[in-house]
Formats: sequence, structure tokens, C-alpha cells
Amino acid sequence: MPSYKAPVDDTLFLLNDVLNFQRFGNLPGFADVTPDVMSQILLEAGKLCEEALAPLNQSGDEKGCMRHDDASVSTPPGFKEAHDAFAAGGWIGLAAPEEYGGQGLPYTLAMAMNYTLAMAMNEFASSANMAFAMYPGLTQGALAALLRHGSEEQKKLYAPKMTEGRWSGTMNLTEPQCGTDLGLLTTKATPRGDGSYSITGQKIFISAGEHDLTENIVHFVLARIDGAPVGVKGISLFIVPKFLVGGDGALGPRNGVSCGSIEEKMGIHGNATCVMNYDGAQGFLIGEANRGLNAMFVMMNEARLGVAMQGLALSEVAYQNAAQYAKERPQGRALSGPKNPGKPADPIIVHPDVRRMLLEIKAFNEAARGFALSAALDSDIAHRSDDAGSRQAADDRLGLLTPVLKGVLTDIGFDNTVKAQQVLGGHGYIREWGMEQFVRDSRISMIYEGANGIQALDLVGRKLPRDGGRAIMTYFKDTTEFLTPLLSNDAMKPFAAPVKNALDDLQKATMWLMQNAMTKPDNAGAASYDYMHLFGRVALGVMWVKIAQAAIEKKAREPEQSARMDAKLLTARFYMERMLPETALRLTRISAGADTMMSLAEEMF
Amino acid sequence: MPSYKAPVDDTLFLLNDVLNFQRFGNLPGFADVTPDVMSQILLEAGKLCEEALAPLNQSGDEKGCMRHDDASVSTPPGFKEAHDAFAAGGWIGLAAPEEYGGQGLPYTLAMAMNYTLAMAMNEFASSANMAFAMYPGLTQGALAALLRHGSEEQKKLYAPKMTEGRWSGTMNLTEPQCGTDLGLLTTKATPRGDGSYSITGQKIFISAGEHDLTENIVHFVLARIDGAPVGVKGISLFIVPKFLVGGDGALGPRNGVSCGSIEEKMGIHGNATCVMNYDGAQGFLIGEANRGLNAMFVMMNEARLGVAMQGLALSEVAYQNAAQYAKERPQGRALSGPKNPGKPADPIIVHPDVRRMLLEIKAFNEAARGFALSAALDSDIAHRSDDAGSRQAADDRLGLLTPVLKGVLTDIGFDNTVKAQQVLGGHGYIREWGMEQFVRDSRISMIYEGANGIQALDLVGRKLPRDGGRAIMTYFKDTTEFLTPLLSNDAMKPFAAPVKNALDDLQKATMWLMQNAMTKPDNAGAASYDYMHLFGRVALGVMWVKIAQAAIEKKAREPEQSARMDAKLLTARFYMERMLPETALRLTRISAGADTMMSLAEEMF
Repeated sequence: MPSYKAPVDDTLFLLNDVLNFQRFGNLPGFADVTPDVMSQILLEAGKLCEEALAPLNQSGDEKGCMRHDDASVSTPPGFKEAHDAFAAGGWIGLAAPEEYGGQGLPYTLAMAMNYTLAMAMNEFASSANMAFAMYPGLTQGALAALLRHGSEEQKKLYAPKMTEGRWSGTMNLTEPQCGTDLGLLTTKATPRGDGSYSITGQKIFISAGEHDLTENIVHFVLARIDGAPVGVKGISLFIVPKFLVGGDGALGPRNGVSCGSIEEKMGIHGNATCVMNYDGAQGFLIGEANRGLNAMFVMMNEARLGVAMQGLALSEVAYQNAAQYAKERPQGRALSGPKNPGKPADPIIVHPDVRRMLLEIKAFNEAARGFALSAALDSDIAHRSDDAGSRQAADDRLGLLTPVLKGVLTDIGFDNTVKAQQVLGGHGYIREWGMEQFVRDSRISMIYEGANGIQALDLVGRKLPRDGGRAIMTYFKDTTEFLTPLLSNDAMKPFAAPVKNALDDLQKATMWLMQNAMTKPDNAGAASYDYMHLFGRVALGVMWVKIAQAAIEKKAREPEQSARMDAKLLTARFYMERMLPETALRLTRISAGADTMMSLAEEMF
Repeated sequence: MPSYKAPVDDTLFLLNDVLNFQRFGNLPGFADVTPDVMSQILLEAGKLCEEALAPLNQSGDEKGCMRHDDASVSTPPGFKEAHDAFAAGGWIGLAAPEEYGGQGLPYTLAMAMNYTLAMAMNEFASSANMAFAMYPGLTQGALAALLRHGSEEQKKLYAPKMTEGRWSGTMNLTEPQCGTDLGLLTTKATPRGDGSYSITGQKIFISAGEHDLTENIVHFVLARIDGAPVGVKGISLFIVPKFLVGGDGALGPRNGVSCGSIEEKMGIHGNATCVMNYDGAQGFLIGEANRGLNAMFVMMNEARLGVAMQGLALSEVAYQNAAQYAKERPQGRALSGPKNPGKPADPIIVHPDVRRMLLEIKAFNEAARGFALSAALDSDIAHRSDDAGSRQAADDRLGLLTPVLKGVLTDIGFDNTVKAQQVLGGHGYIREWGMEQFVRDSRISMIYEGANGIQALDLVGRKLPRDGGRAIMTYFKDTTEFLTPLLSNDAMKPFAAPVKNALDDLQKATMWLMQNAMTKPDNAGAASYDYMHLFGRVALGVMWVKIAQAAIEKKAREPEQSARMDAKLLTARFYMERMLPETALRLTRISAGADTMMSLAEEMF
């Protein structure tokens, strides 16, 4: 069985030393989070994930979810108890404001209600058991949409129970004929005359659509009010609880929504992916009519960061198991001569190519974690800062970087699970070792919450031009200002110089898009995927420069950390030598334009 | 359910127009294969795969293999009938020389007993049903080892039945403690005094180790004769039939070999991957004592080409289904304005990024097919030509290119199944669409028959330096001579020039290895994987130049082929613009050397 150890030390280093978490003491939910408190919270989070969630990962995959004849769905053995423990620990409400449910949180969590720590926990939980972590993760996303767009009455009615994990949440967008293109959505909402609506239609691919973990399930459903405009401007968002809720919060009768079937799929078998049938179910409009996408986007953006975290999380747990195997498996001899001459073979970690595989994963994981946590910090700043300028700057960065995080962390994260599986050779293909499950589970992260090609289009088509390019121009300015002084610093130049070159590639690519995509949108589409990955390599490179800087400072300050910090510097160097150079290839591909690919006649595919 | 159509036209174009199959009329097995005969054979091969094998692919995955209490193993429903049809059609013996079993072959096959066509059939069969195709594929590999290293008596006893598919074959190398490093092998062979041996030990990961498809199973087993030298120089190869065989070929009593369990694995569920227990089983030495690896390498090299073909095969069938989905799925609008204004959405093939994914696969598939078939031709030349110089040249090329084919075609082939799955969005993750099975099945091809990292080491550590670098130097010379005149040909320059640049990168990388790896072997290990992929990109590029050349000639000769040939030229251009440039990145990575990766302390992984 695979093992898992939450990377608490690395997370603490990133938050304290690299991202200067303590600098944000003025934000609500940050003030009392001293390094000690943070350490206590993360250790507790790690412990829960290691001890309660990880042991259920493999059995959850094997048993899967089961739909019964009465349309109820059972989750795998142990999931209910784990969900209770997760909820009782207060982890679901970690990012919620106090008034809607902080009450029950343990002391340390109550003083640390911020999204940044919730995302750190999110990584640990997804590493330990991705299929499980999706249940509370979806509740958190639904909660965010509710708190941002719900009426005061709706928040009072649903938020506390969701925060406590007694009720869960779902997102209902996709229909058989309508995935990426939500304009094709046909689920109907007919006014009932009492202010509520009657919802009818079918939704597919609904994660956690039906299960036995919570007393109630609060579905957030996109539907079209009778007579609404066609296309995406006629879509509204509704709350459709599985059990109707009285004004006092008590559960009433069953609503007209049920699970028609659960999908047989490649992985995340422990999560019920449901076809949901709405048959005149009572729904309650949330936010404005015909502005449902707007409200849903809150949930989707939150979900996209969560999915990015899944990419990292599976890469991390796969790495840990591959590294352990490489240290333990004796096979062959080091090319430079036996390392264990007294034994019949050396452990395979002596082989450069095994180290290459492991280092490619490690050099991703540590920077990706820093990148994702810095985005989480931006989310906290964007929502909680009392300074309008800071809020806007953080919101700009977050908007720009969310598709990069989602697309790049899940693409590379998946590749890394495949690479880690490769380290185990034949054993990697066998179920009991658990590596193939990481591959199957992580695969979905590239698809859901907007397939990665859609992330790339969102980046190039929407995020770059928004507000006259303000976000990307600021990114270039800030990054240049950060790197430039380091170029004349001997210790930092080996890291800053290659990243500056990579940034130049990104600027050239951006310029190419400005010159070639306005008049010919296919050029934007043809460049989008490579642009997203070019951006990702730069962003991870910038994070490595920050990590290297923090490592050098920490080494000077805490000599006992030298070995650990030297490992970070070596890993940073590996990134610069072997991973960052990909930016040049991406720029070449981008500059090739759309002509060739658009010229091939459809029937020749 | 996914569909499959054998790419007969493309295979014919490659064999006839690109590789000039007819030029080899002097080889046994080639003389009577006119274009008409070849077309007839390939159409028949395609029909069998499409109609008998493909329909069993998904059900074979779902049902899998079952081991019963008596240690017998059932294959999925329909496999026995399909194997009978495959054998009755004469497809197993397609590459065997006439004297050992061509007798029963249909007229066209009997005149075409060559490995090249067997490999083309191999691709079709693996596309249609990889788990199934492994059964006859392993028999073919075992047959090759038998014919090359067996005594006349052994050949007479086993070869005809194997050729007819009444008996099947297996390869038994791996043991729990011994995978890549065969020197650790412990299975014992004790002389019985009658010239035969008593074999005792456990083998794992034995594909087709036990099943119900054939009357007998002929195991080819590596074991160590009592008192043999330690390490790889003390390993011998044995034939261990499941049922002992009388001198008249009649089946005798059950031998002491049985299936202990079948592995639960990620994919190829229709193939029984067995733990095989040898408990004093009677075995017969094949080839010389202590030279077993030598004999096994015949089988392994054959198997490596077969596995390379699997990489292509899964990429091809995944592509076909993704392309079809992209043409049929209406979702969103073209960036350049609606293509189907009368309908609510355009098919997603209008999107550049969808075309990018499809073209990356297509540009691989067609060149990879040409590359693999040219290696198969080399195998035929190396074994059948009456000219010693031609034999040696072909054998050199084949030795050099086999690890490239195995490593690169399976790595990219797997990536392509993932890419094709991505085209289907959420549906790609759902079992019934079949795409996720292609991913799970193809994944093993990167691992077995020598994990791809081992292929890379074989290439760099063994194949490059062999015979003073004769093979690689000849490759450079021949390729340069092929490309140089094309650089001054206006029509061909757009293809030849970039490939010439890429060849320069490969030459630089080779030079770097010569200068840096002799004194420091870790530099070879650190460079090996990128070197293999750099070589692969060049080899596929060379194939695209040949295809482009043939396409231009064919267009002039057969104007009705213009549209099809123009599609080839566009695809070649796509390869040059977007895929070939990777060689520069690979060279950069190679030049980084081993120092950084070898410096990280083991405990820091």
C-alpha cells in the first residue's frame, strides 16, 4: 500500500520564509496566526490526512460508490466516519467568515480562518485521498458562491450547516449536449408564483451529486427561466436542496431531484459522479436572474484553484512513493562503480535517469506549492484587504494566474504521476502498489472545471486583454523589478538570469499575440496552449528564484538548516538547467501561427 | 463503443511509395508480393482486426481473465474463437520460413512470408485489441528465438504447432527480486541425467503465462544451471512446455509449472499476467549453456519492435476516435465566426487547439508507422538478404534504432492516447467511450520489454559505442547524403532544411557524449533519455521528408491523389513547425550534464 506524509515543513517554509505570511497580519484571519499557530494547524491537518484519509484511498478505489434501487448512493466503507472527523475538526469552514460558522471551530482554526491555510489543507487531503477530498471541497466551493451571491436569508439558512459539514454542496452545470458551451444549456426554471421556481432537466458528471455523507445536499444548479434570452445571457443560478428546508432550518420533504445513475469512470471511484434528474424540483434563485454565470464563476474560480491543487497533490504523493521505492529497490549497479559493493546490487536511486525523473517531479512540486499558496494569499488579499489598491492588484494577479495554475499544475501533475509510476517499473502497473491509481485519479484534473484547452483560451482570449492588458503589464513590470537587482548579485544571478530570459520569451510571445491575434483570432487559439505552458514555466521559475533567495537567507540565519536549504538550491538549479529552457520551444511553437493547422481539410483528419 | 478502421491505405502508401517495398523482390518472401497481393493481404488483415478483434476489446477489459481453483485461467468471452480465427487465417506464422509451417497458409500469405507484413498486421491487431494481440505476438517472439537458437529436433517438435497457433509461447525473465538486472536471477536448473533439466523457481509478470486459448503453452524460461557463474554470464534458456511433448509431437503429462495467481493491473485486462511457479518442471536447454541471454535477446528485440508497434497502434485507434468525436460534437463557435450559422453550435474541430491535439497525434502516427515498417524491412534484410554487406548494414541500423523505436514510440504513443482522451472532455474519462482504456492499456508499453529508461541506456551505453560507433556514423553519413541534395530543391527544402538542423543537434549531442561520458559515465546516464528522444524526433523527421518526397512524386503521377497527398504535405509541415523544434531543447538538457542531479544527497529526495 502506498504511504503519505504531509509536507508540513515545506509548506511552513514557503508560507513563512518565501511568501512572508506574517506580513499580512492586517488581514482578518491572519492576525493571530503566529508561526507557532500555523505550525500547529498544519501538523493537525497533516495528521488527519495521513491517519484518517490516506488509509481509505486504495479501498475507496476498489469498492467505489454504489447506487441502489431507491436512487440512494453509498460511498465506500469508512468515508462517512472520515467525513464526520473532517467536519468535526472544523476543516470545511476554515475559509468561511466567523459569522457563518466559525463558532464550532477549534481555537487555533478559529483564529486562522483564511483561504490560504484552507488551500494548504486542500493539498494534503487531495494527496491522501482525492476522491474523498472532493466532497468537502465542493461544499467549500458552494459555500463561497453562497456567501458572495446569496441573500442574507439564504446565507443564514444554508451557510452554518454547510460550514459544519452537516450539509454538503454541488455544482450543476453540464448537460448531455452542453459542456464547455453553457449557452446550449436547456434545464428549465418555471416560476411557481411564490417566488421560487420549478426546475426540470438533466445534469451529467455531477461530482458528489448523491451520497450518504451528509444530512442534506445543497445543489447549485444553472437553469434557464422561461422566456429568458438564448445563450449564456439567459442563465440563472438556483439553490435546489435535496431535502427542502423550513424557515427554522429543519429538514422538510424530499425535493424532486434524484440520481439517475452513477458513471463508470477511469478513476476517483470513491467519488460519486452522478447523472442528476430534476423533475419539477423546487429551486431558489440566487443572485440576479440571467446573471447565473456570474455567480457560478465565483464557485468555478475557487474550484479551479482547488483542481490545480489536486494536480500538485497527486504529483506529491506519487513522488513520495517513487522516491521511497528508488531508495529501497536494489537492482543493477551505479554507472560510476558499485555503491554497495558488499551487496548484490545498488538501490536504483544511484542511476542518473532515476534521479532525473524524481528531480523533475520534485522541482515541480516545491515551486508549484509556492505558486498555488501565493495565489491563495492573493485570494485572501482580494477579498479581505481594506486597501482598494491591494485588492485590485491581487484580484488582477489571481484572475490572470488562475488559468495558468489550473492548466499547468494539472498537466504537469498528471505527467508526474506517470513518471513516478515509471520509477517502479512493472510494479508501477500493478494495482497493489497504488501508483496506477494516482495516474487514474489525477487524469480528471486536466478535464474538469474547464478542460485545460479552455483554460488556455480563457488566459489568452479573456485574461490578457482584460482592462487593456493591465494584469499582464503589471505582471511583467513587477517581475522585472524583482529580477533585475538580483542579476548583479553573484549568489542569485544563476537563478535570476535564466528566469529573466524566460520572461523575455513570455514577453515576446505576448507581443506576437498582440500583433497577430487581433486580426486573426485563430492565431490566438493556435498559440493558447503553448502560451499557457510558457507562462507556467516562467511562473514556476520566478517561484524558484524566490525560494532560492529565502534559502540563502535562511542558511545564513539558521546554519542547522544548511543541508535542507542546499537541497532547495540544487533543486532550483536543476529547474533552471533542465526545465526552464522549455520556454524557447514554446515560443517557437507559438510563432508558427495557425495557418498550417487550419488549412487541413476536415475530411483529412 | 469506440470504433476502429485499419489504416490499410496509409500502410500501402508507406510500403509501396515511401519505402519501395518492390525494390526488395530478391528477398525470400518478397518476390511474389506485387502491390495487388500486398493490398489483398492487408485488407484481409484489417477486416479480421476490425470485425473479430475490435468488438472484443471493451468487453475483454471489463471481464478480464480469471484464475480458477485448479490454477487454470479463462480468457474473456470470445477470445478463444478469435484466436482460432487468427490462427486459422495463418497470421501467426506470417514471418516464419516455409519449412516450419507455411504449409497451412492461404495462398497470398504463403507467398508473402515476411516480417514486414507481419508487423503491419501487428499494428492493426494491437489497435483493435492490444490485450488479445499479445497472445499471438508472444508466440511469434518465442518462435523467432526457437528458429534462431533451437536444435533441428526442437524446431521440428515445436515450430509447426506454434506456427499454426495450436500451441503458444511465453517469455519468462522477471522474478520478484530481479527485473532489469537479470544478474540477480535465481531460478535453478538441475540436470536430470537424461540431458534435460529440472527447473525450480518463481517468475512474475508473465504475460499469457496461463490461458485457455491453445492446447499447449511453450514457456521460454531463463534459469541458472547448478554451479553456473554468478551474474548474467551464468544464465541459460530453457524450453518448458506446459504439457510434455512426445517424440511424435503428441501431448504427454502435465509438467511441473503452474500459474500461482494473476496480477490485478491498470490495463490489458484481457491478457493474463501470471505469477508462474516452476516446481521441478522438466526443461530443455535451448542454445548453449550460460548463453541464455544471447538467445533471449532475439526474442526481446523482436518483442521490442512489437511493443513499439503497440505504442503506435494505441495512438492510432485513439486518434481515430478523437477525430470522429471532434467532427461530430457541436459545442461553441469558431473563433473566426460561426461555421454552421444555421445550427446552435459548430463541431469542435473548428477550434485551433483541438486541431493542434489531433495534428500532433496524426503527425506522429504516420511517420511512426513508416519508421517502424522500415525497421521491419531492415529485419527482413538482416535475416534474409544474400548480400553480406546489406545484412550487416541492416543489422547495424536495426540495432541502433530498436531502442529508439521502443522508447519513443511508446512514450509519445501513450501521450497521444492522453491527448486523444482530452479531445472528448468529460466523456473521455467515462468508461463507455473507451478512450480511458486506450490510456490504461498503452501505459504498459513504456514499462515492459525493458522500461524506456533502459532503452535509453541501451542506446547510449551499448548501441552508440558498438563496433567503434559504426552504426551511428553510418546513420549520420546516410542521412546527410539523403538530405543534402534536397536542400537545393525548392519543393523539398521546407522539409529537408529543418531536419538537417535537427540532425546537427543530434550530432552535437553525440559529440557531447563522446567528450563527456567516457570519463564520467554518469553524464551518459543523465543524457540518455533526452538523447533517445532527440534521436526519435530526428528519425521521425527523416521519415516525414521521405513521405513528403513520395507525396510530391505521387501527386505528379496520380493527380486524383492530390487531396490526400496535400494532406500529407501539410502534416509534414506541421511536424517541422511544431514538433521537430524540440531537438534544441533536448540538446540543451543533454548539455547540462549530470553534476546537479548527482549532487543531491539521497536523503533529500
